Amino acid sequence: MEPFANLTLPEKEALRKTLRKEFDRVCEKKLKLNMARGKPGKEQLDLVSGILTVLKEPADCECDGIDARNYGNLSGLPSAKAMFADILGCKPEQCFIGGSASLQLMYDLIAKAWTHGLRHSPRPWSQEPRIKWLCPAPGYDRHFGVSNTFGMEMIPVPMTHEGPDMDLVEELVKDPAVKGMWCVPKYSNPQGIVYSGKTIARIAALKPAAPDFALMWDNAYCVHEVFGEFLPFPDILFLCAEAGNPDMVYEFASTSKITFPGAGISCMAASEENQTYLQSLLKYQIISYDKVNQLRHVRFLQNKAHTIEVMKMHAQVLAPKFSCVLETLQREIGPLGLATWEEPKGGYFVSVNTLPGLAKRTLELCAQAGVTMTAAGATYPYGKDPADSNIRIAPSYPALEELQQAMSIFCLCLKIAALEQVD
Amino acid sequence: MEPFANLTLPEKEALRKTLRKEFDRVCEKKLKLNMARGKPGKEQLDLVSGILTVLKEPADCECDGIDARNYGNLSGLPSAKAMFADILGCKPEQCFIGGSASLQLMYDLIAKAWTHGLRHSPRPWSQEPRIKWLCPAPGYDRHFGVSNTFGMEMIPVPMTHEGPDMDLVEELVKDPAVKGMWCVPKYSNPQGIVYSGKTIARIAALKPAAPDFALMWDNAYCVHEVFGEFLPFPDILFLCAEAGNPDMVYEFASTSKITFPGAGISCMAASEENQTYLQSLLKYQIISYDKVNQLRHVRFLQNKAHTIEVMKMHAQVLAPKFSCVLETLQREIGPLGLATWEEPKGGYFVSVNTLPGLAKRTLELCAQAGVTMTAAGATYPYGKDPADSNIRIAPSYPALEELQQAMSIFCLCLKIAALEQVD
Repeated sequence: MEPFANLTLPEKEALRKTLRKEFDRVCEKKLKLNMARGKPGKEQLDLVSGILTVLKEPADCECDGIDARNYGNLSGLPSAKAMFADILGCKPEQCFIGGSASLQLMYDLIAKAWTHGLRHSPRPWSQEPRIKWLCPAPGYDRHFGVSNTFGMEMIPVPMTHEGPDMDLVEELVKDPAVKGMWCVPKYSNPQGIVYSGKTIARIAALKPAAPDFALMWDNAYCVHEVFGEFLPFPDILFLCAEAGNPDMVYEFASTSKITFPGAGISCMAASEENQTYLQSLLKYQIISYDKVNQLRHVRFLQNKAHTIEVMKMHAQVLAPKFSCVLETLQREIGPLGLATWEEPKGGYFVSVNTLPGLAKRTLELCAQAGVTMTAAGATYPYGKDPADSNIRIAPSYPALEELQQAMSIFCLCLKIAALEQVD
Repeated sequence: MEPFANLTLPEKEALRKTLRKEFDRVCEKKLKLNMARGKPGKEQLDLVSGILTVLKEPADCECDGIDARNYGNLSGLPSAKAMFADILGCKPEQCFIGGSASLQLMYDLIAKAWTHGLRHSPRPWSQEPRIKWLCPAPGYDRHFGVSNTFGMEMIPVPMTHEGPDMDLVEELVKDPAVKGMWCVPKYSNPQGIVYSGKTIARIAALKPAAPDFALMWDNAYCVHEVFGEFLPFPDILFLCAEAGNPDMVYEFASTSKITFPGAGISCMAASEENQTYLQSLLKYQIISYDKVNQLRHVRFLQNKAHTIEVMKMHAQVLAPKFSCVLETLQREIGPLGLATWEEPKGGYFVSVNTLPGLAKRTLELCAQAGVTMTAAGATYPYGKDPADSNIRIAPSYPALEELQQAMSIFCLCLKIAALEQVD
């Protein structure tokens, strides 16, 4: 195989026809393969199903002098706060323990900004003429969905290999209508980029014009190594406080990809002053999130060290899947010059950038062949990838042999899309 | 004992001094008794702790062809929807299954109205000059708290023994700024009143000027009989639809007082059109609430018939506590003419109306004697009981002998407050 760019037009057309026949044979198989979402596979869920039975008797439900089965303790079980503080490197009193989804905590923070305002807001955001938001891109489609449902004006910020383009970010936050920024700082979604220390320091030291600028620090993959040992990561709350921005940051994490997706517990870490303010609003909404499930997680995960051990079991399942994706891309696409991709050490995705204009068509062909992927463009604000290039591959859910099949089809579709483009 | 009204002033003063000495002796005991919140007691929690182990193995987590341990199914497990539909008498497709608190679903509905508007809203409520809300009173303090945190203008509506004063409600809803009403229709909080069929029919047939009027039907005590057999109750969704108001009503329920308070599951029932609209907003907030806990509840409670059996076990614990409250009031206060009270057949409270001006002082004395009660006034909007008369007694949490002690102290404090008033 040689780069497509070196082929003559007739050679390309001949190859397209050959590949198209292969594609038609695949379609006849009526496969159903899914690489769309960052869903752990069954094997991973089985690994952690011991959490189902860590609480058996009434006496098991006592913790911190609290009966987890009854009402009370808005901010969560002290032991759950201590566990997340250990994992994130912040203080227990900076942690609020939520329900089964950190997405809900993020959405809710922005909803509170809308209806009541944040601690330093001059007025509720619903009373502002417009709200602008910085969206490092490619990024997480559900983040952009939250911004979009609130009618924010989303401003894409290019990602570099050290994180968001900070020269641009520093410029953009001079606009007082810019009220916040989404970040997935460790193993970013979808690229798996780890923000560099320098980038993190610049973020912590931002001087936004908006007094209520919200740095949404979604540390979704804080202990989610796929290859290699646990990678220590700085405490953003401390760094922001050091830089004179103690109330600028809200950090989020959850156990959704540690125990059960959508049935774990979540955490929002923020300055104690922010916690006091937000809990004065949250108390009207909920008496406390599910403390029984908090206690299950405390008993099962125990602390940071043991959580990292649990994550190593996940990595044993995930690493061969990530390797399958990367090796297939290297073998099938590498020599052809049709795409580049990241080689993440953790997180849940492999991000592929095709030559311009190939992403949508590739995924259209994949869909025809029974391979479901995250929609092209989903990794950009408003679903609009200006280069029609970025594709997010989620290797976790399919079994390894299904994944191999899906990746072969993906590569086939990418080749066909590239050859079609010649026309 | 004879009515205080029949005593001479010197007789009253002598009695006050005697009772005050008794009070001082009680204070010396430094008791800590709590009749403040509708919290189930430990014995009740132990009764239902079998729910901790209904799911033991990975295979137990399959239901409706869904692995409850993984992401998906925004509106909840089909079996959980079917169970709530059975209990509430509505259709499964009208049910959305939430997290551990129906309060959160109620708050969130109003937050959505604020940020996005409801299905028939001309605009988000944040863009309305003012929002007025009907608050049958005495009522549930957390309902009023939600209205208050959104800055609504709360309009108290007197409760009759058939429910809210409907002549007044029908008049008030002619104001287009009146956007909704709180209702606890079965065993109302705090009075334990069951809305009559006629009242319910009039509510269902309301013709509010606001096209997006929200009837917040908090069926918190739908299966919560304390004395006697399960009392069937009409399906408000059906009645509203029959009356031409299919989208006016949002019904809420939870298992907080069936299994574990704050660690159960909740439900919002609404028309399918409302569900479609609301889920188009909710999908940005959460992928689904905790389906593992939903499945625990489906396995443990099974259906309406079995849930009623579980509630009979709760009633065996609660009935002696309610009897203790009612008998102590009858014995200690009845002959003195200082108060009247409801005799609820279900729910979680006994509502006492003292002679005007005695509630705050009575509870102040209770606090001094170590008995914590819901704050006087809490059962009225803005915490303002115009007659300073209503007191909510929550008998469920203390053990029976503690409750007896607390009730004796409460009656003592009420007597002293009444005798002080003579001055």
